[in-house]
Amino acid sequence: EGFEIKVLPTWRSDKASHIGQTENWNRWVDALADAAGFPVEDWDAFLHAMDTRHRYFAAQGCVLSDYGTTEIFADPYTRDEICRIFSKARLRQPLDESEIRRFKSAWLYEGLAADARAGWAAQIHYSCLRNNNTVMFRRLGPDSGFDSIGDWSSAVSLNRLFDRLETAGVLPRTIVYSLHPRDNEMLLSLLGNFQHGPEPGRMQLGAAWWFNDHRDGMLRHLEAFSQLGVLGRFVGMLTDSRSFLSYTRHEYFRRILCDKLGGEMEKGLIPNDIEWVGSLVKAISYTNAENYFFPSEQTDSHK
Amino acid sequence: EGFEIKVLPTWRSDKASHIGQTENWNRWVDALADAAGFPVEDWDAFLHAMDTRHRYFAAQGCVLSDYGTTEIFADPYTRDEICRIFSKARLRQPLDESEIRRFKSAWLYEGLAADARAGWAAQIHYSCLRNNNTVMFRRLGPDSGFDSIGDWSSAVSLNRLFDRLETAGVLPRTIVYSLHPRDNEMLLSLLGNFQHGPEPGRMQLGAAWWFNDHRDGMLRHLEAFSQLGVLGRFVGMLTDSRSFLSYTRHEYFRRILCDKLGGEMEKGLIPNDIEWVGSLVKAISYTNAENYFFPSEQTDSHK
Amino acid sequence: EGFEIKVLPTWRSDKASHIGQTENWNRWVDALADAAGFPVEDWDAFLHAMDTRHRYFAAQGCVLSDYGTTEIFADPYTRDEICRIFSKARLRQPLDESEIRRFKSAWLYEGLAADARAGWAAQIHYSCLRNNNTVMFRRLGPDSGFDSIGDWSSAVSLNRLFDRLETAGVLPRTIVYSLHPRDNEMLLSLLGNFQHGPEPGRMQLGAAWWFNDHRDGMLRHLEAFSQLGVLGRFVGMLTDSRSFLSYTRHEYFRRILCDKLGGEMEKGLIPNDIEWVGSLVKAISYTNAENYFFPSEQTDSHK
Repeated sequence: EGFEIKVLPTWRSDKASHIGQTENWNRWVDALADAAGFPVEDWDAFLHAMDTRHRYFAAQGCVLSDYGTTEIFADPYTRDEICRIFSKARLRQPLDESEIRRFKSAWLYEGLAADARAGWAAQIHYSCLRNNNTVMFRRLGPDSGFDSIGDWSSAVSLNRLFDRLETAGVLPRTIVYSLHPRDNEMLLSLLGNFQHGPEPGRMQLGAAWWFNDHRDGMLRHLEAFSQLGVLGRFVGMLTDSRSFLSYTRHEYFRRILCDKLGGEMEKGLIPNDIEWVGSLVKAISYTNAENYFFPSEQTDSHK
Repeated sequence: EGFEIKVLPTWRSDKASHIGQTENWNRWVDALADAAGFPVEDWDAFLHAMDTRHRYFAAQGCVLSDYGTTEIFADPYTRDEICRIFSKARLRQPLDESEIRRFKSAWLYEGLAADARAGWAAQIHYSCLRNNNTVMFRRLGPDSGFDSIGDWSSAVSLNRLFDRLETAGVLPRTIVYSLHPRDNEMLLSLLGNFQHGPEPGRMQLGAAWWFNDHRDGMLRHLEAFSQLGVLGRFVGMLTDSRSFLSYTRHEYFRRILCDKLGGEMEKGLIPNDIEWVGSLVKAISYTNAENYFFPSEQTDSHK
Repeated sequence: EGFEIKVLPTWRSDKASHIGQTENWNRWVDALADAAGFPVEDWDAFLHAMDTRHRYFAAQGCVLSDYGTTEIFADPYTRDEICRIFSKARLRQPLDESEIRRFKSAWLYEGLAADARAGWAAQIHYSCLRNNNTVMFRRLGPDSGFDSIGDWSSAVSLNRLFDRLETAGVLPRTIVYSLHPRDNEMLLSLLGNFQHGPEPGRMQLGAAWWFNDHRDGMLRHLEAFSQLGVLGRFVGMLTDSRSFLSYTRHEYFRRILCDKLGGEMEKGLIPNDIEWVGSLVKAISYTNAENYFFPSEQTDSHK
């Protein structure tokens, strides 16, 4: 109370995708049904319930979704298959690996399509390998620090996902983060396939994140973004830690950004024009994010 | 006319490999048959027609081939299988994924073997993921800017391809380019498996290319080449853009090369000997390429 | 004689894993049976014989094992399956790919578990693609310079291996080296899943090795180790070349380490405190290794 900065909700539907964890997933779908106010026993009801909640979040000021995955799931599937898989899972019947992957593919596609219809921006955080230490998982549960970088291939599947969405006219503005720093260049080139007006920078490589939010990780990210993207469109740093102290990483990021750009000015790699470079820093640190997340209230951006 | 620099043709047979695109591929084989002057209805006729055209290109001064692929195809196959797959494709019968892969494996092997027999150098450009945006593909067709970096594994298949060729005595001098910069070190170590006299530098990592032909990409390429290869044998920059303005990238490359070497001289990392380093630059910028592509007219190279 | 430095044996059991090379493998198992003093015709006898030899090595002062593999093998298997696979191999019956992989998975698991029970440290060297040039293999045999970097995915399998061992309480102190430099960050994050007291730095990323033991490879390794690990716990350089001259790489490594740390002191990235940084260098160059390999004789380490 009395805090003048607005903190908005983000749409996180990851638990809807964990269809392989039968009990937890069914409990989550039951809670979804309660929140939506009607039973959710089939795929159509699920989509309807998700849509109901999506609208509720929008009414609370949400403008941004966030999907956390291991691999990028974009296996081919049909609507009938997903209906059948969903119903099996509600009946607590076991699913095989292929069914789980197809369901996750449908979940990710439908989530992004809903974001596009709502005019939200979307985020995909991927290549996380979770809960790797069973001893500590039993003691402390999930998300307790025993996660690490995955090394799946993702170029084919991520292109397929975005292409399907673009073909159907429901690809949202999207920020993609991979936990594996080797993916920076691949992702920047991939995102270029889906850039177009009237939204410059609509597809973005997200900031160096989690295991990469240190000096080396940030510098490599900024270098790749400069070479393969348009740095002046970058929406800048994030924190997904939700803790008060994690906000200092924005300050850390800005100092590394300024140090890099200042160094390049000194070496003659970019124009020694403090006004112009300053406006670039301002755009990356503030204006770009404002315009990206609230496009209807767009202010002046970096030229 | 009156332009004193000779521009030579390069052998590009990629369209022969697209056997999964039934109509386009059959049209291309029909055109090959026309050019060769005899029908091409089976695999033996295909090899004979390709050989006829290969000789024609050689007569026009061609000394260099170029293969563009997604993955490196080196699946096991038998001659009988390829004969059957080829005939099926000519009859417009559908092929499965494994048949397509085996055909591409045979196409790449036979192409490189033909280059070796002709004394040509070969180039392999790979890890390109093509036509990722269906909306724009329908509007503009292929090769219109919606391509990006692939992230397939290639160490096993590329070693297998080169080993098969070397065992049969038909491995040509080859320059390998991956679109994915993470592959630099792996490729340099792999190429070392197939180096031997009397042709120093016969297997080469190609210059930083396409999404990598910027300062960061070129510097990382040169650093890896220096650490894992012999920089003095590098044949230098390429352009595959065929556009007049793309030639400036050679100038850009040379400046980055000189800046890197000059910086290392200043730091004492390489000898501060301008004659010796100058001869290295000259070799990389000109002499090595001349010797590599026209080995019978060999001039002095960098020692 | 008269050489005051003790050279200790290392436990190398790689040949036990090559079950697909029927004749060589059976010859090796015969030799193992001779050394152990009893027949080795089934899996239980094999484990018993390995244990006998492991104790013999320990009696000779061995405190360290070393496993060299292509991929990280951690396929699911049952004890019964391994018994059956072992017996088939002893009868010279052919094994399929899946049987070979399961056997290698069991070999790696059991080897590391034995190391843990003995209080040894373990090393895993992986992502090596061996004997790639058949012509030269026929002329010179294995390990003659025709090996290179592999590019398999390993995050899932390595986590699975370590988690199985940790759950069973038999995960030894382990140093992991990948031949592929792109794996540095992934491995450092993965090793973090299995760190715990009372042994700080028990899981380590091994030094830049083989194709990476040059200035660029070492600097990238040290940077990643600093950002994602605790550099002060690093046990430093290795040589696996067993040749007198290869020891100079330790000197080369120390100079690169000191040059990097000195440069960071000058730039203000680490404290300009020569005592403190000096103690870090001493720990990485000597004390950490002593404490890691001989934990019961532990001396003061870097704070």
